[in-house]
Amino acid sequence: MSKKPLWIRHASQLVTLKGSSARPLIGKQMEQLHIIENGSVWLEDGLIQFVGEDEEVAEAYKDRLEEAEMIDATGKLVIPGLVDPHTHLVFAGSREKEFEMRLQGATYMEIMNSGGGIHATTSMTREASYETLFKESKQRLDQFLLHGVTTVEAKSGYGLSLEHEIKQLEVAGKLNDHHPIDVVRTFMGAHAVPFEYKENPDRFVDYVIEDMIPEVASRKLAEFNDVFCERGVFTPEQSKSILEAGLKHGLLPKIHADEIEPYEGAELAASIGAISAEHLLKASNKGIKALADKGVIAVLLPGTAFFLMAESANGRDMIDAGVPVALSTDCNPGSSPTVSMPLVMNLGCLKMGMTPAEVLTAATINAAHALNRGKEIGSIEKGKKADITIFDVPNYMVLQYKYGVNHVHSVIKNGELIVNGGRLVCNDTRIPS
Amino acid sequence: MSKKPLWIRHASQLVTLKGSSARPLIGKQMEQLHIIENGSVWLEDGLIQFVGEDEEVAEAYKDRLEEAEMIDATGKLVIPGLVDPHTHLVFAGSREKEFEMRLQGATYMEIMNSGGGIHATTSMTREASYETLFKESKQRLDQFLLHGVTTVEAKSGYGLSLEHEIKQLEVAGKLNDHHPIDVVRTFMGAHAVPFEYKENPDRFVDYVIEDMIPEVASRKLAEFNDVFCERGVFTPEQSKSILEAGLKHGLLPKIHADEIEPYEGAELAASIGAISAEHLLKASNKGIKALADKGVIAVLLPGTAFFLMAESANGRDMIDAGVPVALSTDCNPGSSPTVSMPLVMNLGCLKMGMTPAEVLTAATINAAHALNRGKEIGSIEKGKKADITIFDVPNYMVLQYKYGVNHVHSVIKNGELIVNGGRLVCNDTRIPS
Ligand SMILES: [Zn+2]
Ligand SMILES: [Zn+2]
Repeated sequence: MSKKPLWIRHASQLVTLKGSSARPLIGKQMEQLHIIENGSVWLEDGLIQFVGEDEEVAEAYKDRLEEAEMIDATGKLVIPGLVDPHTHLVFAGSREKEFEMRLQGATYMEIMNSGGGIHATTSMTREASYETLFKESKQRLDQFLLHGVTTVEAKSGYGLSLEHEIKQLEVAGKLNDHHPIDVVRTFMGAHAVPFEYKENPDRFVDYVIEDMIPEVASRKLAEFNDVFCERGVFTPEQSKSILEAGLKHGLLPKIHADEIEPYEGAELAASIGAISAEHLLKASNKGIKALADKGVIAVLLPGTAFFLMAESANGRDMIDAGVPVALSTDCNPGSSPTVSMPLVMNLGCLKMGMTPAEVLTAATINAAHALNRGKEIGSIEKGKKADITIFDVPNYMVLQYKYGVNHVHSVIKNGELIVNGGRLVCNDTRIPS
Repeated sequence: MSKKPLWIRHASQLVTLKGSSARPLIGKQMEQLHIIENGSVWLEDGLIQFVGEDEEVAEAYKDRLEEAEMIDATGKLVIPGLVDPHTHLVFAGSREKEFEMRLQGATYMEIMNSGGGIHATTSMTREASYETLFKESKQRLDQFLLHGVTTVEAKSGYGLSLEHEIKQLEVAGKLNDHHPIDVVRTFMGAHAVPFEYKENPDRFVDYVIEDMIPEVASRKLAEFNDVFCERGVFTPEQSKSILEAGLKHGLLPKIHADEIEPYEGAELAASIGAISAEHLLKASNKGIKALADKGVIAVLLPGTAFFLMAESANGRDMIDAGVPVALSTDCNPGSSPTVSMPLVMNLGCLKMGMTPAEVLTAATINAAHALNRGKEIGSIEKGKKADITIFDVPNYMVLQYKYGVNHVHSVIKNGELIVNGGRLVCNDTRIPS
């Protein structure tokens, strides 16, 4: 935390998203960015202390202006730090060869037989030392930061045994302690049925419920509990038991739902009171209506559809139906190996018909709500964490219009300037013991 | 030009594309990258002097190693500088508001009536001073450089009068003189029918042929001549006369063909012996076969399709049919406001089914051939220009696999290091008189 106050001023546009802390924005609210032109923010003690026009801040702090470190945002766009609410951050290894094979026409089975797929990452992650996992994941976090992200969710689910799930979650916890980005943990033991349980998936479900969840919860290794509800992975019934078991132990439910085919995942998310439902490419109209009725946040992952050459979820219709929509990279080594929320926002516009204002809301305050942190982050309001991203564009529209470019200029985390001119101010590569 | 030799060494992969200078690569050749592991390149006098494994270069220059400035490419990918063979670089103004209107559901006519479209850019470009045009275009060139590009084509076509077409081409020439990037000029007076000629487009065609082309050619303001052959813009007959007139004056033909509907643009490109045909989203099978037969390069622009939410051209089929394929941003303020060849390569894979090796060939040597510069740039071979881009990825597959991120680490132009660590080494913002 910086000793000196930080004064960001002269913002061409300061997107505050004020009044959005209590609940996620829906429908027309998603376009109400509450922009201040010639905007100023005063940051101190890691928090946002004052938000207003240049003159207002200058007046409020007239006796202390010289104390502050100034950030000149002339011609720039200032927004709340981006929040990525769905990643599989902690894993080992890289699977680019599979990607090439796919483009060369290999079938899914050929790729699996060549040692690819999720089980490849599970093996590499199980074999990786704590230090290797930390180091590879930290490099990704640095990249997230350079792309304007100040909070990421991180799921386990490449361990698939109690020991290795805990290793993943502990690495995520250590990253939260040692990296500027806040890392929010989700337990996802039910990410896949591991080879060992192939013949008896119900026994794996019991293992998740009886052994993993109680241990993870009692050691406070996660806040959320997620499950991959999809034909051939976990059924809605299995998913329901897993999410209910988590709830009993204080883990809030999330769910990978209706990605490959309609499977009533959205309906389950609504009936169980999940905080969010993810993917939803094939969610039924009934499921979407249920999400809207219960205020379940749809976390949409257009990068995954892009990388898998599939149709994106219909973000436009979901917003019009009143579902609160958030966006995320889904960063993972198989179906979405990216760290770029800026591109994901572009895809939100170009592949899901969302507007430039809506994707900004979806990548900040609604994403914060999907992590149960709407009161702390996601908007620029007095008392919130001093997490702010500054883009080298004059308005929020240009961020989507000049597509395919990372326009991040600066990132402020907890009131400290950590990315400046598109570069990490201090690149601490220590690996803590 | 640097006095000191530059020695790039320890490249994880050095993509040479050797043997490709004489003609563009087609079919299976497009995947033959000719990679050297632990590769070294010796650059001196602005040219590539030696290419080989680390030991070979160390041996060849053993008496001069200490003279050289060394660039350590450990863990990195070294490729020929990217070439962007189709841009509308020189224009004034920005049209992000149109983009937002489109996403908010505005019709084409509503956008035009609000003062949008190509005529908006034409007005702003006509009104802009030489200095403003230079400055705005130079900023784009800086961004191209940061995205790994060392040569761009620049078309006129927002002037649409002799005076303003010349202004655009002169600005492009000055940029070529004063910016590290090589700017290759294309005259495109036939980009649109200006308002003044709306009732009599044939008179505008005569103006292009009789006044513009001779003047542009005699003043050596361009090497190529391009026309927008599309229903409602210029007919194949008008296009043919314009391209033939250019040929008579030494301007090589290019053509915007079959973008919106099949219009026999590809067929015309082949019959007239164009160096390249661009867009081709709706090219007929007969047209594609004709391009293959005549060796006309298909310059594909998947960013434009992405931004217009259209289906991309079928790059996969064109390559399989034997057409030499190149890739480009189509950088322009209406249909593709990007400067990112890295994203365009991603789109080549994900939207056109090209492989990671093919998109690399398409963005280097085939793009160089599309600018009639296959002998000078586009591959890393002795005697070629010392234009090289270094990415912070260990192999060419990761460049596409970790999508949506600009992985450029360094750029060397004419043997000089001008981008390092993702930043311009020297940002010269002088505006020449
Ligand atoms: Zn996921
Ligand atoms: Zn064009």
